[in-house]
Amino acid sequence: MKPIILQNYAEGRWVAGAGDLAELRSAVNGDVVALTSSRGLDFGAMAAYARNVAGLKLKAMTFHDRARMLKALAEALTARKDELYELSYNTGATKGDGWIDIDGGIGTFGVYQSKGRRELPDQRILIDGVVEALSRGGTFQGLHVFTPRQGVAVHINAFNFPVWGMLEKLAPTFLAGMPAIVKPATATAYLAEAAVRIMLDANVLPDGALQLIVGAAGDLFDYLGSQDVVSFTGSAETAVKLKSHPAVVRESVRFIAEQDSLNASVLGPDATPDGVEFELFIKEVAKEMSVKAGQKCTAIRRAMVPANLLDAAQEALAARLSKLTIGDPREEATRMGALVSVSQREEVRSKIAALTADATIVFGDPGATPVNEKGAFLSPVLLRCERPNQARAVHDVEAFGPVATLMPYANWAEAFKLANRGKGSLVMSVFTYDKTFAEDIVLDCAAFHGRIAFIDRDSAKESTGHGSPMPHMIHGGPGRAGGGEEMGGVRGVMHYMQRTALQGSPRVLSSITHRYMTGAPTTGGEHPFRRKFGDLPIGYQLKTKRREITLDDIERFAHFTGDTFYAHMDEVAARANPLFGGRVAHGYLILAFAAGLFVDPDPGPVLANYGLDNLRFVKPVKPGDSIEVALTVKDKTLRKPDQGEVRWDVVVTNQNGDEVAGYDLLTMNAA
Amino acid sequence: MKPIILQNYAEGRWVAGAGDLAELRSAVNGDVVALTSSRGLDFGAMAAYARNVAGLKLKAMTFHDRARMLKALAEALTARKDELYELSYNTGATKGDGWIDIDGGIGTFGVYQSKGRRELPDQRILIDGVVEALSRGGTFQGLHVFTPRQGVAVHINAFNFPVWGMLEKLAPTFLAGMPAIVKPATATAYLAEAAVRIMLDANVLPDGALQLIVGAAGDLFDYLGSQDVVSFTGSAETAVKLKSHPAVVRESVRFIAEQDSLNASVLGPDATPDGVEFELFIKEVAKEMSVKAGQKCTAIRRAMVPANLLDAAQEALAARLSKLTIGDPREEATRMGALVSVSQREEVRSKIAALTADATIVFGDPGATPVNEKGAFLSPVLLRCERPNQARAVHDVEAFGPVATLMPYANWAEAFKLANRGKGSLVMSVFTYDKTFAEDIVLDCAAFHGRIAFIDRDSAKESTGHGSPMPHMIHGGPGRAGGGEEMGGVRGVMHYMQRTALQGSPRVLSSITHRYMTGAPTTGGEHPFRRKFGDLPIGYQLKTKRREITLDDIERFAHFTGDTFYAHMDEVAARANPLFGGRVAHGYLILAFAAGLFVDPDPGPVLANYGLDNLRFVKPVKPGDSIEVALTVKDKTLRKPDQGEVRWDVVVTNQNGDEVAGYDLLTMNAA
Repeated sequence: MKPIILQNYAEGRWVAGAGDLAELRSAVNGDVVALTSSRGLDFGAMAAYARNVAGLKLKAMTFHDRARMLKALAEALTARKDELYELSYNTGATKGDGWIDIDGGIGTFGVYQSKGRRELPDQRILIDGVVEALSRGGTFQGLHVFTPRQGVAVHINAFNFPVWGMLEKLAPTFLAGMPAIVKPATATAYLAEAAVRIMLDANVLPDGALQLIVGAAGDLFDYLGSQDVVSFTGSAETAVKLKSHPAVVRESVRFIAEQDSLNASVLGPDATPDGVEFELFIKEVAKEMSVKAGQKCTAIRRAMVPANLLDAAQEALAARLSKLTIGDPREEATRMGALVSVSQREEVRSKIAALTADATIVFGDPGATPVNEKGAFLSPVLLRCERPNQARAVHDVEAFGPVATLMPYANWAEAFKLANRGKGSLVMSVFTYDKTFAEDIVLDCAAFHGRIAFIDRDSAKESTGHGSPMPHMIHGGPGRAGGGEEMGGVRGVMHYMQRTALQGSPRVLSSITHRYMTGAPTTGGEHPFRRKFGDLPIGYQLKTKRREITLDDIERFAHFTGDTFYAHMDEVAARANPLFGGRVAHGYLILAFAAGLFVDPDPGPVLANYGLDNLRFVKPVKPGDSIEVALTVKDKTLRKPDQGEVRWDVVVTNQNGDEVAGYDLLTMNAA
Repeated sequence: MKPIILQNYAEGRWVAGAGDLAELRSAVNGDVVALTSSRGLDFGAMAAYARNVAGLKLKAMTFHDRARMLKALAEALTARKDELYELSYNTGATKGDGWIDIDGGIGTFGVYQSKGRRELPDQRILIDGVVEALSRGGTFQGLHVFTPRQGVAVHINAFNFPVWGMLEKLAPTFLAGMPAIVKPATATAYLAEAAVRIMLDANVLPDGALQLIVGAAGDLFDYLGSQDVVSFTGSAETAVKLKSHPAVVRESVRFIAEQDSLNASVLGPDATPDGVEFELFIKEVAKEMSVKAGQKCTAIRRAMVPANLLDAAQEALAARLSKLTIGDPREEATRMGALVSVSQREEVRSKIAALTADATIVFGDPGATPVNEKGAFLSPVLLRCERPNQARAVHDVEAFGPVATLMPYANWAEAFKLANRGKGSLVMSVFTYDKTFAEDIVLDCAAFHGRIAFIDRDSAKESTGHGSPMPHMIHGGPGRAGGGEEMGGVRGVMHYMQRTALQGSPRVLSSITHRYMTGAPTTGGEHPFRRKFGDLPIGYQLKTKRREITLDDIERFAHFTGDTFYAHMDEVAARANPLFGGRVAHGYLILAFAAGLFVDPDPGPVLANYGLDNLRFVKPVKPGDSIEVALTVKDKTLRKPDQGEVRWDVVVTNQNGDEVAGYDLLTMNAA
């Protein structure tokens, strides 16, 4: 097969590099798959193009607009995913490995498009948290908001998951409203390039929102500025270089790093050789060694077991690993494919040699060359470290291949200490059914790990396992792992936005955020239940008439509902209550009477009251008190073409004007 | 007066530096106030002492424990604040300036102790966000938590607010559960040292929680590791050096920087020379130039006005500035004191010279030496820049003294562009009554500014102004401002904690977080309303009997409450409703009947139902359906010695076991 010549996508057009072509070889048989270069690109112009052409367009879209864009991209990728699977085999990936990369990547877009529409507003500004009362009279208040950073996001990706690694960074970036320049790892750039082509062909991205560099990033970093973001996945060595780049430091470029990680898996002290958790642990360690030939940032590198189970664990692991079929990833029977390249295999071999300073190889022969001699195949290698407390290499050296070290711990404290010896990791898994061990390991170890997965008899069937970063959960970790954080649902979106504190009058803050705040001006007129979704402006208000609540009302309500709580029924007992000092109306009576006051009964645009948030009963309502309600449109979100959610601010006051209850009411309204 | 010899507080004892004493001089008359040195300290041992001695103790406390600690520290500082005010005059600060520093600092502890108890749990682990359903069957779920970072927080503070600058960093650090090493700026270290003495004398901090370096930080940074945090306030130049320190980069030490900022204040295009906002703007610019002699990171450096108001603004500002009394800060009539030191004054003079490349001095004489010749006094200096679009220095050079530049803008777009020319600032203020201008400036500029304060006729009286960072709001900004963030209420606490994603079964996640999750095991027995706060374990559950809801119930409820909405009353109309397809029970009827089912009427530990959160009506209840309730203790927080808040998970199901409504119920219970 003739090698593909890869192209960069820069400033709105596809362009091949001007010479200096690098050869990208098949991991399976060494054939040249593609040729690539980024020579001749004007990197400064690319950054400016992203900021000036795409940035403005993305910023003008709402979160929901951008979520729909992600949905369309996911659909386009799904429709043509076979093309990606075909290329994926060349990276040494089996069909299962490709599924993680390709379907996993598309699934990440799926989760983000869904979360974007459910958890983010149909607005361009995102409110963060609640209103802060900065003044007694309420004329000066505070509120935090997020807006898109007005720069470019530079994504430097690793070779192992050319599709997922790209999409998991693009999803939050696009949802935030930032354009991206993607620089995939050169070794597997042909797969990333193909995915970029599919996304651009879908024709839903604003011009300049996505650019691609297939080759070196040249002097791109010299052009980075204070609004830009770098998101890097790769080695600690490269991360140090990029983080220290003069422009990054001088301009405070936001830098997200996901780098080395010596992930631990801990078998709990409650485990027994014939117990469920023991078996689950063995399965998971073996799986993490073989999936993607162990080339996963999240793979288990350190497997820790109670000292008395060390031999049993070694035996069980060796038995499982010996059944592993290594071979051509295209073949159905293959369970483990090749490393990405011959040079990567040599790198792993040298790391295994380093590990033998502390540990002994107890399974596998790193020198063997299984399957095709020209391919980058390597046998899985299990090491055993007898004295992990004294050891250094096993806690410091990451062999990025099918390699793990088994080690014993004597007691809980030692297990926790060993787990933290990684000096910051992406993930730790814990196989235990002991709740106290689980709680203690979180208290002592969580600060060292970006994620902790507990797997036990209850969760095993549905668990996504040790090594799978889910788009809902953060992916990243402190220290050696880079100190960064990606995904985690909408948390990941914030890295591409700037938080700003706003202060001002309720009038101006309401107007900026399109959300009614207490104290902002209101409008009114006909009953709001007579108005369609589109005709209800923020701040549209109904003030009801007043209704007295009698002792008879309270008694009737009590007997009708069955809620004969003494505070409503027994004056003597109610007087002894420190909060009431006498009989009071039921909270639910207040709610129901409030609805009786504000509901307009005839059919109209309001379809249903479907929820209520943040209800607080602020002051007791006593027999003879009377209540009235202010119902104000707080914010609105279109949910379907013909239906929208209206959030109403509801304040119930008594005859003295004191608030007795306040809440947000949710209705679904016809649009 | 004999100079004080300052002492460091290291590894649990006060110790003077071993020689190399630096002379700290009074800003007012040049007398030597104090001598200081940090020579001889073992910085590595200090860091280890913080982590190993104090870290464990702080981590074992709950957020509420730590909040009470802050409260006690604030009380100790308040009781002895006169000592601090006395020292403060030597820094050149007036009484008013001292109030910002000293009372402002103590107030920050006040806000944090209060927020710590109201907004954080009485737990050691903080839950972040909601449960993520990672599986269909619900046996494997996800949840994010924060735990204290297990390192030391190193605080490098600026000279201008030696008390506030220290306390605003300590409050979130201690609340998070991290120990701190404070290194105040040497010039005003005597004031910081005095405040540290008061805090240590209060005897409420665990040993090692607070250490002090009065002098150079030596080789401290060489000992920083992956769990440590640096929070830096100072110049961009120093920030660049520290951020690039090999240990910081290699270990991914979390680094929070607050550095240079060319803050803008924008007078809106709607302003008129005799309008309210014009006057407010002039007042604020003059105030920001003179408070603390303009030595505030947040002071207005660039004042932007519509071109047609340039002359009027200059005139009004000059008139105000000419009335400013500069002098000995101890004197009542003094409105502006001295800069911190003579060398600082020379620095400001050289920056003013740089600014004159683009602008002309229109008020004040930077060469004049008002008041005491030996003091660091300087006249306020107003510059005027005619062509700010072409200018560079006025957007790049921060003269850290009573200096601002007035500049015109032609239209909205130009105003936004100029505001963003600061390349990242801490704060911008906007004086406008035009809501659209306010909204547009947020969309176009927020990403460049950490805070935007809108001041107008509605908010002016209560506004805290352009330059005051409030503990509730974030303080920091992108780009030139350092890219950091401090305070912002509990947001600031997170910088000293690590976020970790937890995955597992509801059983294990509930147990770790001390919060009931759906699917976790429950217990039960006597009615929960019969149990005191302390005797209600998480997961304690009541399952009620079932009650039918009849058409008669619905009609009675409608006529009683007045809520005769057609969906409850009119079968034909209700059938046409796309969500119901027939008559349904009122949501409030379901709530009230649910209470009727679970309430135990007799006096007992439950004092009141005081609120309800996240109520969703999931499925309609039709006449003839029957409901039952599961009421489960979700979490608990002691609020007073004898009262605690219980959060109940409430699930209402119908006769088919389908959920019809779910919510959190809040009760106050006797302890």
